[in-house]
Amino acid sequence: MLHVVIMAGGSGTRFWPQSRRRLPKQFLKIGTEQTLIQETAARCLPLIAPPQLWVVAGAVHAAETAHQLPELPGEQVLIEPCARNTAPCIGLAAIQLLAVDPEAVMLVVPADHVISPAEVFQQAVRDAVRFVTAQPDSFVLFGVKPDHPATGFGYIHRTATTVTGEEALYRVAAFKEKPDPLTAAKYVASDEYLWNCGIFVWKAQALLDALAVHQPELHAGLARLREAIGTDRWPDALATEFPKLPSISIDYAVLEHAQNVYVLPAAFQWDDVGSWLAVSRLHPQDDDGNTIDGLHCGVDTDRCIIRSTDDHLVTTIGVKDLIIVHTPEATLVADQRDEAAVKKLLAELERRGLSQFL
Amino acid sequence: MLHVVIMAGGSGTRFWPQSRRRLPKQFLKIGTEQTLIQETAARCLPLIAPPQLWVVAGAVHAAETAHQLPELPGEQVLIEPCARNTAPCIGLAAIQLLAVDPEAVMLVVPADHVISPAEVFQQAVRDAVRFVTAQPDSFVLFGVKPDHPATGFGYIHRTATTVTGEEALYRVAAFKEKPDPLTAAKYVASDEYLWNCGIFVWKAQALLDALAVHQPELHAGLARLREAIGTDRWPDALATEFPKLPSISIDYAVLEHAQNVYVLPAAFQWDDVGSWLAVSRLHPQDDDGNTIDGLHCGVDTDRCIIRSTDDHLVTTIGVKDLIIVHTPEATLVADQRDEAAVKKLLAELERRGLSQFL
Repeated sequence: MLHVVIMAGGSGTRFWPQSRRRLPKQFLKIGTEQTLIQETAARCLPLIAPPQLWVVAGAVHAAETAHQLPELPGEQVLIEPCARNTAPCIGLAAIQLLAVDPEAVMLVVPADHVISPAEVFQQAVRDAVRFVTAQPDSFVLFGVKPDHPATGFGYIHRTATTVTGEEALYRVAAFKEKPDPLTAAKYVASDEYLWNCGIFVWKAQALLDALAVHQPELHAGLARLREAIGTDRWPDALATEFPKLPSISIDYAVLEHAQNVYVLPAAFQWDDVGSWLAVSRLHPQDDDGNTIDGLHCGVDTDRCIIRSTDDHLVTTIGVKDLIIVHTPEATLVADQRDEAAVKKLLAELERRGLSQFL
Repeated sequence: MLHVVIMAGGSGTRFWPQSRRRLPKQFLKIGTEQTLIQETAARCLPLIAPPQLWVVAGAVHAAETAHQLPELPGEQVLIEPCARNTAPCIGLAAIQLLAVDPEAVMLVVPADHVISPAEVFQQAVRDAVRFVTAQPDSFVLFGVKPDHPATGFGYIHRTATTVTGEEALYRVAAFKEKPDPLTAAKYVASDEYLWNCGIFVWKAQALLDALAVHQPELHAGLARLREAIGTDRWPDALATEFPKLPSISIDYAVLEHAQNVYVLPAAFQWDDVGSWLAVSRLHPQDDDGNTIDGLHCGVDTDRCIIRSTDDHLVTTIGVKDLIIVHTPEATLVADQRDEAAVKKLLAELERRGLSQFL
């Protein structure tokens, strides 16, 4: 049976000050009507019944997750005692799914991506599930044809021809890290490169089997955890075993080593909303190229991304290429070219004893 | 007897959003411990007793004036029913003073300038009062030796030699409007040019006599008003006569025409705080040339003027030469070179139905 696992462990800082330690990006509306995790759940629920919906989240975000997703059965919020990257996160979900459904097929989706239309996404998932059901040792990724030479996404190099007997799937030839602009342009010009959406379909058992081969330490830790499922020992086991799991991404842990890794080119629009610049891709712009959300009035203002609330007025005069984000507690004014410096800024806040603003 | 008249009718927009229609600059702390009008009153009170302190203010600011200056007798807040520039304002004060003191000497000071040290200012006033008492038809202005080629101030060209029998006073040769940078540099290089502080000492009767000669229409209006002082007719007379007075500055109305206009070079520091840039003259700067008031944390931030409150954090990354002003209701982010555009911005707010933010 298909189960959906939403990975909601993100604690990114790139949307500060709108995102905060207690409320990271997946719990915010960014270019969306509902919060990103609500949109993600709504997109997946037509594929399953609520008992097959799972969310993996950090302990500090469990309550917010339950609050934002009231349809989610409480025991299906899986708690990560600490952040250990995607392989332990997905492994944790896999052992839980197997405890209720030995034939479980997992759709693994990040909580904080923007995807549309939902129907195209759902059809792609159905295609992948059918393939995985027929070939239970396979791993399917979704790839989106790039429409611009993005340097902020990872790429998948697919093989030239589809899998025999399948029109839609290709074997993965190689994973490519975020490229430089020239390389990205080559990828866009070729048909064989796709954005790696970080969305996966596979059987839970196939994942554990692959972990046993490629990540024996991680697999052993998960096996110890698995023994405690459904017992009084679970909270203790989770608190002691999970932090010992190696922090590694599912790509490095399994996908770059495993056989039978496939990519399904998907026709949906996709964005990982990795920075404020994504907001200008997801929102329309005014005549001067500004992307505005909230109350704003400007004079000689060009290509700015401006976010405020409905009751606080942000005004601008003679500025361009800025990111301006107002929240009731803090305001950011930053050059768009210098976005990575948010990390520096937040470190400086910590150093200066202003961590209440983090 | 000396009376102090504080002109508090200003409604400037250049400090928006910190200044608002209901709370213009004179009621704010700008580079000062107390509000500008409180500092002004505190600077003048050692020269007089409270019954000789008068404030001329707009009707909407009468309550704020009384609130900020509790030592001021309530009936000595003179209300301007509408703004009519400095000549009617000073004329209104003059007829009120004469009603209680036919020999009244007026010290006229704007409510919103920054001056220090107070003792030097007070000594200069005493010198001027002594001169005016001895020569009751004279008009004395204060001039500050320029320490930089300011293009935002008016200048006084003094005569080469002091008045016979006086060490400190010169006749005024000419008034000079705000100069271009080259002319300002010449003024600074010469000893004969002084910043016109807009601060005056003269006998109330001498002013009325000069108005009779140079501004008969204004004088006639004041004369009609004067007849109503102390009667039940005063509120009506003020409401009907004052708006009919010609709107004209005291410089144009009297000082550029009158004989016996003198300038007293004063050794105090003076700034008319005409724009946010004045804040960087009045506050110290950090190592990167930023002028900060309130909570701020920055990365790669240079020569910015940043104002916030004590509980709202303003952060900046990779920006320079900006003015950033946060208030609970509105935030301004502006290029310093484009400061005059605040007027354009406020007109746009009005046009867009956002006048609650004015």
